[in-house]
Amino acid sequence: MVAAVHGDKIWANSGDSHVMEPPDLFDSLPDDIKELMPRSVKDPSGDFETIFIDGQEFRRDLPKAKPGKTGLGLNARPAGSSEDDFIIRVIEGNDATKRLQDLDDEGVWGEVIYPSLGIWTFNIRTPKVVKEGARVLNEFALDFQMRSPRFVCTASIPLLDVDDAVAEIKRSSAAGFACGFLPTRPPMGRPIWNDEEWDPMWAAFAETGMVIGFHIGTEPHDPTERTGVHYRGRGGAVLNYVETTYGGQKAVTQLIACGALDRHPELKVLVSEGGATWGPFIADRMDEGYRQHGAAVRPMLAKPPSQYLYDQVYASFQHDASAVAANWAMGWKNVMWGSDYPHFEGTFGHTQKTLHELFDGVDDDVSHRIRIGAFEELFPHVPARPAS
Amino acid sequence: MVAAVHGDKIWANSGDSHVMEPPDLFDSLPDDIKELMPRSVKDPSGDFETIFIDGQEFRRDLPKAKPGKTGLGLNARPAGSSEDDFIIRVIEGNDATKRLQDLDDEGVWGEVIYPSLGIWTFNIRTPKVVKEGARVLNEFALDFQMRSPRFVCTASIPLLDVDDAVAEIKRSSAAGFACGFLPTRPPMGRPIWNDEEWDPMWAAFAETGMVIGFHIGTEPHDPTERTGVHYRGRGGAVLNYVETTYGGQKAVTQLIACGALDRHPELKVLVSEGGATWGPFIADRMDEGYRQHGAAVRPMLAKPPSQYLYDQVYASFQHDASAVAANWAMGWKNVMWGSDYPHFEGTFGHTQKTLHELFDGVDDDVSHRIRIGAFEELFPHVPARPAS
Repeated sequence: MVAAVHGDKIWANSGDSHVMEPPDLFDSLPDDIKELMPRSVKDPSGDFETIFIDGQEFRRDLPKAKPGKTGLGLNARPAGSSEDDFIIRVIEGNDATKRLQDLDDEGVWGEVIYPSLGIWTFNIRTPKVVKEGARVLNEFALDFQMRSPRFVCTASIPLLDVDDAVAEIKRSSAAGFACGFLPTRPPMGRPIWNDEEWDPMWAAFAETGMVIGFHIGTEPHDPTERTGVHYRGRGGAVLNYVETTYGGQKAVTQLIACGALDRHPELKVLVSEGGATWGPFIADRMDEGYRQHGAAVRPMLAKPPSQYLYDQVYASFQHDASAVAANWAMGWKNVMWGSDYPHFEGTFGHTQKTLHELFDGVDDDVSHRIRIGAFEELFPHVPARPAS
Repeated sequence: MVAAVHGDKIWANSGDSHVMEPPDLFDSLPDDIKELMPRSVKDPSGDFETIFIDGQEFRRDLPKAKPGKTGLGLNARPAGSSEDDFIIRVIEGNDATKRLQDLDDEGVWGEVIYPSLGIWTFNIRTPKVVKEGARVLNEFALDFQMRSPRFVCTASIPLLDVDDAVAEIKRSSAAGFACGFLPTRPPMGRPIWNDEEWDPMWAAFAETGMVIGFHIGTEPHDPTERTGVHYRGRGGAVLNYVETTYGGQKAVTQLIACGALDRHPELKVLVSEGGATWGPFIADRMDEGYRQHGAAVRPMLAKPPSQYLYDQVYASFQHDASAVAANWAMGWKNVMWGSDYPHFEGTFGHTQKTLHELFDGVDDDVSHRIRIGAFEELFPHVPARPAS
């Protein structure tokens, strides 16, 4: 499906896309590990799914069909969309041939592709289980990536033992991954990203040249909390949606403030789906704190904190008009467009309409940088779209 | 003290300033209430102060003098500043005559002035105590406000009983307040701002025409947590500083998503000190959620959520260069400058340098709107600075 196009087709790379793993993904694992891996069971009501993982159960709201019976979860869908839309998209998106047809129809060339079940591995509490699980997820992702040079799949990184994380970064980089997927907050009980514990992981990313891909909405949480539901009551859907952006900003602030980007100037960080206008804002906030609270700052950095964000951090957005101005008016060149295919938050079905709304009348250099250039800078191995 | 000026003196109103109440403020209250009101006791080490309030004790880090012995709290000071700077400023700032001299030296005309001890009243757990305390705080603030037509003091609002809140809004408006001070999160145990419970309070603000002044860093919290310390370890000072901005964004999102600004189009909201570039960003995030999760949105609003933010919400910043572009490039006309006098995060001592860095070369209309116009729109009763 292609929406009405206001002009010539324009193309973009996507800094944020997804593929959904098949249900039998973990069948090859030994029984004692397999039974602890994430699996989704849809409630007969159709209201939510339960993810069983490592002895824990997480509930997540599902897209609703019945009018007047809607939830507040992340899977809420656009008003007027069909009940089956999401399932159809996922099935198409998992078939590489049909996915490429979708991409061509929509005008999307290269894609950073995140796992789906892989998000849940960050809730596993047993190091051996997450290590084996990440390996299986990464075998699937690597196999998918090999279906097209346009696919940049992300490697899941086991985070319960930093040695396992370093080993998987090195292994997956050697196997062909160009990006490693991290949640915006480490697994429950682990220190946040500013802690010394993670230093060997940043070193491994820097050494391999793998981009760090933080995807928003991935914070591990207690099974008693419903995924994505921070607020209830009036305005809950909007409040919960806005809430997802903060995790990416906090992860980036942690990486910069602790000196990781200072120690590894070659390290590149992508924050996917959380918008991009936050970049220049958080850069200014960090600088004000760094300067005005300077007597308490540890460690001191070689440059103002903002400079690391401008040089080494990238972020993808879907519809935000302000994100384009964050490039041309605020000077953050690492604003990157993303489709979020096949999710409801994304542009599937109206990508051309969105791209025209965002970029018609925008300076060619700015438009090209956001649609094409920033992605190519992070992933130079992806071949450019042939001139048609 | 005036820093080197790069050109002609330029003037600005401040959307964010402070006055510190005298220690004997609550002496007029009956003993049983007086002993529950906030009082600050400085630790002999000089490292922190303890705020005693309503049977609770809160610790807050103080500016440090000893090199190598610095904290991570909000009171951390700029590197190279003197131990006594803050105390000297506070003493001057509490003397209306000396304060006006400071303002004239710095090039600041009108000011929104928040209380200091007043922030702590949001931690009181006894309705009668907070009600009587707010009244005393507001008598002091009103007295201070009467010292100059340039002062816009903010009324503290008792929040443990919404009827008390409504009564104090009406009383303080009638007494001469143009702005009511709210914390970015309600007192512990009270529902957040999207809840129906607060509707009479929004109606009272709308009816009286008082501006709602949310000041960042005011979230009530458990006494076991050190004020302003969310993060420890590497980068803690920068992380804690950046963290303070999120509360204002969340409060605004709650007010818009729950429909309060839709129901009261005359209601105006100011978020002080948290920067301003977040405005266009959160506007875009709200719109994406509202549209892409539309089937779950309750209540529906007459306009896209962004429009309420653009029309009814204002925000003050000190040093952020990106905030100026949020006006001219992203179209948010309600960006407002603020000095944060006399706090360390502010511009005292370098106001002219900051204003020149921010506004030299910027279009006159944009510069005037951010420095002067947005403030005058919220507080039209403040007389303009006479042409000199």
